[in-house]
Amino acid sequence: MAHKVELISVGTELLLGSIVNTDAQMLSQGLTALGLNVYWHTVVGDNPQRLGEALEIAKKRADIIITTGGLGPTCDDLTKHVVCQTFGKKLVTDAESEQRIRSYFSKTNRPMTENNLQQALLPEGCTVFTNDWGSAPGCAFEADGIHVLMLPGPPSECTPMFQYRAVPYLHSLSEGVIVSHTLKLFGIGESAVEAQLREQMNTMSNPTLAPYAKEGECELRITAKAGTEPEAQRLLTPVLEQLTGQFGALVYGVDVPSLNWVVLQKLKAAHLTLGTAESCTGGLIAKLITDLPGASQAFKGGIVSYTNEVKANVLGVPTSLLEQYGAVSAPVAQAMAEGVRRVLGCDIALSSTGVAGPDRDDRGNEVGTIFVAIATPDGCHVRPLSLGNRPVRERLRTHTALHALDLLRRYLSNLSYE
Amino acid sequence: MAHKVELISVGTELLLGSIVNTDAQMLSQGLTALGLNVYWHTVVGDNPQRLGEALEIAKKRADIIITTGGLGPTCDDLTKHVVCQTFGKKLVTDAESEQRIRSYFSKTNRPMTENNLQQALLPEGCTVFTNDWGSAPGCAFEADGIHVLMLPGPPSECTPMFQYRAVPYLHSLSEGVIVSHTLKLFGIGESAVEAQLREQMNTMSNPTLAPYAKEGECELRITAKAGTEPEAQRLLTPVLEQLTGQFGALVYGVDVPSLNWVVLQKLKAAHLTLGTAESCTGGLIAKLITDLPGASQAFKGGIVSYTNEVKANVLGVPTSLLEQYGAVSAPVAQAMAEGVRRVLGCDIALSSTGVAGPDRDDRGNEVGTIFVAIATPDGCHVRPLSLGNRPVRERLRTHTALHALDLLRRYLSNLSYE
Repeated sequence: MAHKVELISVGTELLLGSIVNTDAQMLSQGLTALGLNVYWHTVVGDNPQRLGEALEIAKKRADIIITTGGLGPTCDDLTKHVVCQTFGKKLVTDAESEQRIRSYFSKTNRPMTENNLQQALLPEGCTVFTNDWGSAPGCAFEADGIHVLMLPGPPSECTPMFQYRAVPYLHSLSEGVIVSHTLKLFGIGESAVEAQLREQMNTMSNPTLAPYAKEGECELRITAKAGTEPEAQRLLTPVLEQLTGQFGALVYGVDVPSLNWVVLQKLKAAHLTLGTAESCTGGLIAKLITDLPGASQAFKGGIVSYTNEVKANVLGVPTSLLEQYGAVSAPVAQAMAEGVRRVLGCDIALSSTGVAGPDRDDRGNEVGTIFVAIATPDGCHVRPLSLGNRPVRERLRTHTALHALDLLRRYLSNLSYE
Repeated sequence: MAHKVELISVGTELLLGSIVNTDAQMLSQGLTALGLNVYWHTVVGDNPQRLGEALEIAKKRADIIITTGGLGPTCDDLTKHVVCQTFGKKLVTDAESEQRIRSYFSKTNRPMTENNLQQALLPEGCTVFTNDWGSAPGCAFEADGIHVLMLPGPPSECTPMFQYRAVPYLHSLSEGVIVSHTLKLFGIGESAVEAQLREQMNTMSNPTLAPYAKEGECELRITAKAGTEPEAQRLLTPVLEQLTGQFGALVYGVDVPSLNWVVLQKLKAAHLTLGTAESCTGGLIAKLITDLPGASQAFKGGIVSYTNEVKANVLGVPTSLLEQYGAVSAPVAQAMAEGVRRVLGCDIALSSTGVAGPDRDDRGNEVGTIFVAIATPDGCHVRPLSLGNRPVRERLRTHTALHALDLLRRYLSNLSYE
């Protein structure tokens, strides 16, 4: 029997529009990947009566119900109580969860108010989903032929708890498998990918192809459905090879988490060190590299030179260059990368300089006029960018940082820079 | 009578998790601002039976139903048909809409396939919402005492059509307004806020109080409902004053966007310049400041000193300190802040050093052992942190950066540091 899943998100903040329901998207993606059919999302506020009614409706039409939210310590956190009422379960204190909550507070030297212990109340006989990312545990149980899972609302807790606790629980309920591979591309947009693949996409049914636009990047997901994982992989392999050939140097990885992850692995494998000199990205390139555990094995440091004074005094950019070409120029981008490579004594350096907006710079350069550069033992390369069509400051800075990382990826993979 | 609104989003792509339901958030915000109560969001796929059942449920509990999606020209666009079936309405071609669709295609020099004219079919006698942002019109009608509004799914069409077509239609149905103010707090958790306010929250009905946990912060929203905006403000003012007094220095602003925004405004107002020296935050503090337009008026730059070598050679941290206390120590945090203040020649400097994980450092410091420091013309202050309960690297770094910004906020506001 094909399972029917309903997601019930509990939280008045969703109904007020204070937050967007990213949990529902994350869960829908994950459940679809498990071969489970999500047929309904329902959102109700922190209101016991309406939550109870929503659960009664879900009971009649779904056989897997997943709630998010309402597991916290405050009095509007009512999900467990209403779920237990609906399914005739008793709430009991789970000793291990209580212990975890107490130690969570003592470790952080914070006084624990009594209401926090509410979080250790769980349906009798349930499977406990321990929470390594916050304080409220989740859980799962089966009653009346229906599987009910309760997950916390904050995405920083809901996402890992789904991945590491709920997916193993749900695995036994899914029939057949859906396997996906994702090609990660940098330097081509979603619509260009789709234009190149339109005919192929229309004629394929298993595997299927779907391009997704990501910030500054494009993902191409290839998904196959089969009885077993090896069968699905046999369907995927030839398509994956064909597409990797077709997109060539634009593909920065398959099933890899991100461009910064790829370049850090390559840096570590090559035993090379990195430094950064950032103007318009203001620390974002360094932040993206140091987001990753183990960054210290390759990353020496960075200099955010937001003023010309810092560019000259700390990075040693010649004042003559700054005067002749202005801070937003290819020669200055190159001098910044070479300067930080020298100052920090690293093998490779990346730099950025440009106009992030909202206004033109004092030389009349348009918003989005940007230069990124790389300095290596083999020389320097500058890539000029025109990102004026991405008028939001944050997007423009993200795209710039990714372009700098793309120069590094291409250097480390022996690919041409452009 | 208080209206009860249900949003029904139609689209299999929502159930697959391909897109997030931003329409629901946008509509919820807009409807709340009109004083209408949104009690349910429901999402169903492009499936006539399940959409029909969802409409039957909504008919019983809501008196305003707003659908999004399923108005386009393709065969899975079925919202109008199912809605008309449910409410006993006839679909007829709207001549003006047909004309608009034909001219939309001729204006953009695209051939119009016949299926596009489906979009001109509308419920007999409805109020047409003309679409100036795409091709599919929306509409509204009243039947069985229920107002039904249908809006297109793409956010670029749904948002303006709601704003310019649906809001005027709904205005006549709303009574009164809802006005909110938000206190932003740093240094206290959601459950501690609620513990302090529980009694007050339980006894208040208008305005109402609700705490929300944000990454590293807490928000306290005070919401009043009244006939007019000035009346709502009169209800809010005394509560706002009382709470601001009660939470004192923990409140970093009211209705302000973020902590980094607040400190940048204060820096600019005081004509002071800032620099950063970051180890474990790896550029994040600089990134948060330079996220904001106009950061260059106050921010000179930063140094990401990820290795001891960079701490010593670029920031001038004495090697003796590094050897005696280790890089993760209060004396080194202080020397980093003082060093970058000297090297960049700025008025104020912030620094961070600590163990971001996943492993202990080589001196055996636990993950989450962190020091942030501020150096000013009036001296230096170090705040030690134990953030071991936030084992996700990203959260730990975010909390650390916010603590550094909090030191700066307190200095600029003449508050004590702790």
